[in-house]
Amino acid sequence: MNGARALLETLKASGVEVCFANPGTSEMQLVAALDEVDGIRAVLGLFEGVVTGAADGYGRMADKPAVTLLHLGPGLANGLANLHNARRGGSPIVNLVGDHADYHLYLNSPLTSDIEGLARPVSDWVHRATSADDLAEAGAAAVAIAHEGAGRIATVIVPANHAWSGDAISAPPRPTDARATVAPDVIERAADALRNARMPCLFVGGRALREDAMLAAGRVATATGARIVCETFATRHQRGAGRVAVEKLPYFGEEAQAFLAEFDAIVYCGADAPVSFFAYPGKPSILAPDTALSVRLASKRQNHLHALSALADALGAPAETDRLQRAGTPPVEEGKLTPVNAGAIIAEMLPDDAIVSDEGATSSFAAFAQSAGAARHDWLQLTGGAIGQGLPVAIGAAIACPNRKVIALQADGSAMYTNQALWTMARERLDIVTILFNNRSYAILNIEMTRVGAQTPGPKAKAMLNLREPDIQWRTLAESMGVEATTATTTEEFRASLGRALARKGPVLIEAMI
Amino acid sequence: MNGARALLETLKASGVEVCFANPGTSEMQLVAALDEVDGIRAVLGLFEGVVTGAADGYGRMADKPAVTLLHLGPGLANGLANLHNARRGGSPIVNLVGDHADYHLYLNSPLTSDIEGLARPVSDWVHRATSADDLAEAGAAAVAIAHEGAGRIATVIVPANHAWSGDAISAPPRPTDARATVAPDVIERAADALRNARMPCLFVGGRALREDAMLAAGRVATATGARIVCETFATRHQRGAGRVAVEKLPYFGEEAQAFLAEFDAIVYCGADAPVSFFAYPGKPSILAPDTALSVRLASKRQNHLHALSALADALGAPAETDRLQRAGTPPVEEGKLTPVNAGAIIAEMLPDDAIVSDEGATSSFAAFAQSAGAARHDWLQLTGGAIGQGLPVAIGAAIACPNRKVIALQADGSAMYTNQALWTMARERLDIVTILFNNRSYAILNIEMTRVGAQTPGPKAKAMLNLREPDIQWRTLAESMGVEATTATTTEEFRASLGRALARKGPVLIEAMI
Repeated sequence: MNGARALLETLKASGVEVCFANPGTSEMQLVAALDEVDGIRAVLGLFEGVVTGAADGYGRMADKPAVTLLHLGPGLANGLANLHNARRGGSPIVNLVGDHADYHLYLNSPLTSDIEGLARPVSDWVHRATSADDLAEAGAAAVAIAHEGAGRIATVIVPANHAWSGDAISAPPRPTDARATVAPDVIERAADALRNARMPCLFVGGRALREDAMLAAGRVATATGARIVCETFATRHQRGAGRVAVEKLPYFGEEAQAFLAEFDAIVYCGADAPVSFFAYPGKPSILAPDTALSVRLASKRQNHLHALSALADALGAPAETDRLQRAGTPPVEEGKLTPVNAGAIIAEMLPDDAIVSDEGATSSFAAFAQSAGAARHDWLQLTGGAIGQGLPVAIGAAIACPNRKVIALQADGSAMYTNQALWTMARERLDIVTILFNNRSYAILNIEMTRVGAQTPGPKAKAMLNLREPDIQWRTLAESMGVEATTATTTEEFRASLGRALARKGPVLIEAMI
Repeated sequence: MNGARALLETLKASGVEVCFANPGTSEMQLVAALDEVDGIRAVLGLFEGVVTGAADGYGRMADKPAVTLLHLGPGLANGLANLHNARRGGSPIVNLVGDHADYHLYLNSPLTSDIEGLARPVSDWVHRATSADDLAEAGAAAVAIAHEGAGRIATVIVPANHAWSGDAISAPPRPTDARATVAPDVIERAADALRNARMPCLFVGGRALREDAMLAAGRVATATGARIVCETFATRHQRGAGRVAVEKLPYFGEEAQAFLAEFDAIVYCGADAPVSFFAYPGKPSILAPDTALSVRLASKRQNHLHALSALADALGAPAETDRLQRAGTPPVEEGKLTPVNAGAIIAEMLPDDAIVSDEGATSSFAAFAQSAGAARHDWLQLTGGAIGQGLPVAIGAAIACPNRKVIALQADGSAMYTNQALWTMARERLDIVTILFNNRSYAILNIEMTRVGAQTPGPKAKAMLNLREPDIQWRTLAESMGVEATTATTTEEFRASLGRALARKGPVLIEAMI
């Protein structure tokens, strides 16, 4: 078999089931090989940001990597922003980036670029295959690396001649390392810190936000009186009624600083000490108080379930926690649609076991808070701050979990970045309800403009922050790509639209005019 | 004044008139400063690929740089593909990339990334400002560097605290180097090669394709009998009736090789020796015959007008050339719309002094050939092979040349990459007619699939190459972003739509069903 087929056979044997792709000429051998290897689903994205963002969403929900198939350096470049997000969130992804045949590279034809240079800032591992056999070996290595420490980004550069040359053999799967456990003395230090504190905090993130680890965190809290606080932007937070309740660290630095001020001990598990998202003149970047004792129980990449269970046991915690979230959602103030009443309706109607892909920015803060006691669900957030992630992540989640409803909470400005995702939702008939919050502005920037100390914005500055003139017609835009859409301006309309969308399968967009 | 204002004052004094922007929090000081400095127009793009592609189009037509304003590493990443194209084409661009305050960087907040690493593969110069004053100096240096050798990419990283800190002063403009002229002995070698050849070829590209340099090339051809051939993908080709006629090197390697086979001497001016765009199994990458004498008269970055004029004089060429293109366009075969009859109608109706932004791929090959004798115009092509360039380049060209009609010939697959460009056309009321060739496939890849030696594609491979299921409704898509649109399926409809669009000002999209 040729190198392309040997690579795909290797990936399949290593557990890869999905290839998100936007290929070109240099990847045609890999495209052809997709038909020769059963069991790898090929999903086309019409822009590479959709491809890499979908792989991120898939990795979050499947806990294993999909592969992306990208067209040389520029194709990779178009996917970098969502790879940045994926890497920040600790998602597992294997990128396959085609390149010219190795003997062709020195000729510097138009699409030649420094692929390694482009890949490194977002990859934990970059390898250029040196032969058809090496291509297969690289595939096996990439999958193993992608599994390391919950999730890494492995990028394999595929020179076209190694894909098309023959007589290669597939490589056996490699064992994936278990995540490192925490040493007993660290458990003891964390236990001491929580025991001796007046106001202890257990600060969690990463895979500590999965249901099983959170039950252990709840036991720790029950035993010590600690409050459980989570990072502002979580890769995958399993929450809802009956799961352990968690408080969210506020986004804005001043609020976060005030929130954390009262703690005299903070134990971190799966999250670093929080810092402000941006720097602001005269405002601190470090948010936790200097006076608090700080203990790192487990890094992002260690085994959080083990760490929290061992900590609970060390504290002699009861087997059950009293921190379970009660069911219930806030009342809805009916009338004109706002982020607050839309959020309450979403919380109230959220189906059991839903997946929420949240890139709602200022418009979904309310929905998150209000859904604490909603039906149990997974909440996926923008992990690296690079907007254009929400709709692609919804695609990947829907492909990883075809029997679960996906709700994409999406800000209009961010949605424009990767609006091509709507087409893939339609083609693959994915069960995604996109709630497009249309406020016709980069609303967060209107807030940030004053926070950075800039004067009252003039007309040119204001024009850079609003999305009016012309207003984007989101219903029409969705329909142009084959996604059914409605517009809601009142709670009544929104409730009716959401009810219809939840009652059926397949992609729908609801434009929420707020 | 603060660093942001000092930078913008410096840029203005250095001749910068336009800022294409998609800013975020870390760039708010620069956004605020736009209102404090008169004479720099701010144009918002809703995705960074639009921003950098527009700067490319502007640079091609204005022969000076616009600045881009990009949001940290991920914002730059989204604009890299079109910067790759711009660099390949030798366009002048100054990128301003915001970053966190320098003291905030070590905290590794979510949007922190290796901006230098991302910038280097597409930049000729990368500089991180070290103070507010250095920011202004960097702006002056960047503009001078962008002017070097016809056009370069200069990237300035702007830490937010240097933008917001005060007491900076603007920097004086720096002189821009004239492009290097060619040494007399090289002129002589080229003259000898053309004189002594049986079948000589003058192979031109870059700024040799401007009207004045081409008149000198025509004199050379008249004196020596040489055929004038140009590179396949030109940054800016001034052509049409009354200008010097040029033959275009075919895209596909085999055709290009056959085309060049008969020449026994090739003199290159503004272009490198041609190579195939991709490598293919069993096919050569180098296209010119080994047997031909090859002389490089001038590199891409030298002064082509001087080189060709000196060559013509050395050859004792007459003052006038006999190679002027006669006016006339081919007859139109009426009926169902095809790339061929659409191309003939475009050629026939092209207004005088139009600018054509061509990313039509397989659909605009015909239009190019048929418009050789059309009204004089500038033809801009996809220079680096990274699709998604055509609509943004049209934006930049329209802003550089507000009194000229811009025609964007656009393939559907490529248009999807940066469809957000339509919104900017509407907001800025740009005089652009987009002809969207809708063949509902990556048509070029259907050809390339067999050329790379892959077997007959199976269903998965075929699904990666077609844009059906669902069909994209381009008229609706354009209207959703405020651009008037029509659909044409026959020559009659196409002619009527194009006539209406040319008779008025402002953006229009014509979906050409082919």
